[in-house]
Amino acid sequence: MPVDHSSRRAALRRSMESNDLDAMLVTDLLNIRYLTGFTGSNAALIVSAHDSPDREDNTVVCTDGRYLTQVAEQVPDLRAVIDRSSAAYLLSSDVTPRPGSVGFESHVVTVDQHRVWSDIEPQATLVRAPGLVEELRMVKDEHEVGLLRDACRAADDAFAVLIERGGIAVGRTELDVARELEALMVEHGADGISFETIVAAGPNSAVPHHRPTAAVLAAGDFVKFDFGALVGGYHSDMTRTVVLGTPQQWQTDLYSLVQRAQTAGREALAPGVSTASVDAASRSVIEDAGYGEYFLHGLGHGVGLEIHEAPGIAKTSTGTLLCGAAVTVEPGVYFSGRGGVRIEDTLIVRDDGPELLTMTTKELTLV
Amino acid sequence: MPVDHSSRRAALRRSMESNDLDAMLVTDLLNIRYLTGFTGSNAALIVSAHDSPDREDNTVVCTDGRYLTQVAEQVPDLRAVIDRSSAAYLLSSDVTPRPGSVGFESHVVTVDQHRVWSDIEPQATLVRAPGLVEELRMVKDEHEVGLLRDACRAADDAFAVLIERGGIAVGRTELDVARELEALMVEHGADGISFETIVAAGPNSAVPHHRPTAAVLAAGDFVKFDFGALVGGYHSDMTRTVVLGTPQQWQTDLYSLVQRAQTAGREALAPGVSTASVDAASRSVIEDAGYGEYFLHGLGHGVGLEIHEAPGIAKTSTGTLLCGAAVTVEPGVYFSGRGGVRIEDTLIVRDDGPELLTMTTKELTLV
Repeated sequence: MPVDHSSRRAALRRSMESNDLDAMLVTDLLNIRYLTGFTGSNAALIVSAHDSPDREDNTVVCTDGRYLTQVAEQVPDLRAVIDRSSAAYLLSSDVTPRPGSVGFESHVVTVDQHRVWSDIEPQATLVRAPGLVEELRMVKDEHEVGLLRDACRAADDAFAVLIERGGIAVGRTELDVARELEALMVEHGADGISFETIVAAGPNSAVPHHRPTAAVLAAGDFVKFDFGALVGGYHSDMTRTVVLGTPQQWQTDLYSLVQRAQTAGREALAPGVSTASVDAASRSVIEDAGYGEYFLHGLGHGVGLEIHEAPGIAKTSTGTLLCGAAVTVEPGVYFSGRGGVRIEDTLIVRDDGPELLTMTTKELTLV
Repeated sequence: MPVDHSSRRAALRRSMESNDLDAMLVTDLLNIRYLTGFTGSNAALIVSAHDSPDREDNTVVCTDGRYLTQVAEQVPDLRAVIDRSSAAYLLSSDVTPRPGSVGFESHVVTVDQHRVWSDIEPQATLVRAPGLVEELRMVKDEHEVGLLRDACRAADDAFAVLIERGGIAVGRTELDVARELEALMVEHGADGISFETIVAAGPNSAVPHHRPTAAVLAAGDFVKFDFGALVGGYHSDMTRTVVLGTPQQWQTDLYSLVQRAQTAGREALAPGVSTASVDAASRSVIEDAGYGEYFLHGLGHGVGLEIHEAPGIAKTSTGTLLCGAAVTVEPGVYFSGRGGVRIEDTLIVRDDGPELLTMTTKELTLV
């Protein structure tokens, strides 16, 4: 699917309409990328509510001289102006409606920026409008799903090769294995890594967000991998826990418990379902087994241009799942000092059941 | 040199004193890392002006349950409390002086966060106090210089091996070469890469911030490399431009011009010197040769826990260099459609002349 930024801006205009905004000043760089395709490190975008998708005369992107060529290439369908002060420039230009209500991203704009802007254009009313673009971003279009699929495939392929070539072996360090896995993701089509790879062996597997160290993998260890690939700006996220050699009974029991909880979480994903109830579906499996206190975090999160984005899926989450949301499901149970298991997939919420993007087996794998 | 977070907090207290603050609420994660060593993804820190370095009873770090073990290990010298709402929790706790002036980082705190905080604690006065920690961070202590040195060495070593093994060769793509260079940095001691590596061949070398593509390296090309290694959270930054095969006259002339400008920039680095005058020292070499309009960006920037941090070194910069600042010097001249040259080092400003951290030769290298 080709990308269609114009449709995304049209959706934003509908959202602006229900918020009574004449224009929206977008300064979050990922939101600008989402709405225009521009990937530079300095930009502002003003979207006019009164433009139409086929005539966007008052919808303008602004960046600095370093990106003169890049903005022309990446955003051929919008007027681009070059000025270092980007947002301040747009606010002082004639694309800003005055008098008029100009929404701004109060959840990312700093107190200092807001103060400067208020001084620049006292005639336009700056209105707090947090999260409008993030709300759109929750539902992935097929272009985005394609990139997520590619990212998940790169991670799947890399992990398969790592296991095949004996990369998870007694005597290697967590760091060595992590770096090899990262290199393999790039070899298998990733532009880069999604976040710092977690490789956690033995007792370290009980630390939910362990950073890989020079700790050496030992026979009988749980080894937990939490990793992802980046493709076209989109992040994959997957966790698998394997056993090095022969598992003990407590390990197969623990694994099987987390596996059942993860299945329950995945099966609860459906449009219109509350995110808290998805968390509950999975968490209750672990609680019923008497291990609720060892499941220390939320069940999952949205994923896309950011590794963590809306919607959150946790006990305290509010809101419901939308069709097309990309989310993770990742229950974990951690026995401090002994070891822990987490299993995580990236999925798309669909009407006819979730679409699984991370294909690596979730059966207990002995390496 | 071992790291001494307590001295850094003492320096912040002196800065708070001159700003009449009773406490400072730090929420920028890199600033928290700098002041405490904590590297988790959710935290807030309140530093009390009335504490002393050997008795920091009212200086408290707050993070969530995921980091229970990590915060105890990384911040053994401060009281840590566990609460998901971090900053909001600290504002409502008894470590917040009330009545009293509590500085906050208005350059990073969002309009929405500030609104929530103002509601929580109307009795404490939240005072805009932007950039206090960043100002301290400009001057690197010897622990930091050690990490920067290691990061620069990893980049130097990787680049040397890339050249030795014939990695820069006709027929390879920019992307291939970039990924190999990144892997080599990790092999030579980097924890990861500092930023997305730029490899720009032929006409692409004239794009200051070119992202590597499937473009193929050809005989006679300028090939520009801008890359860095990350060690212990610190970023190295180096640019070298080589010629693939035999250079033409215009290439040696252009290279020699940029080389002279870069030398002039380095030689201008000294404590107390204005950053604008450092830019001018280098830029005037290029302007005097009649190519001022092809030098499209500032001369350099500070580097440390961020790849771009204070001080900026550009035409429009204000402020002066301090002894111990880590900065880059990177003039470039770009002939659109033909090719460009940039040469960049990372250096420490010292009383007895700048200390060069990026050791790779700046003589024109033919590969």
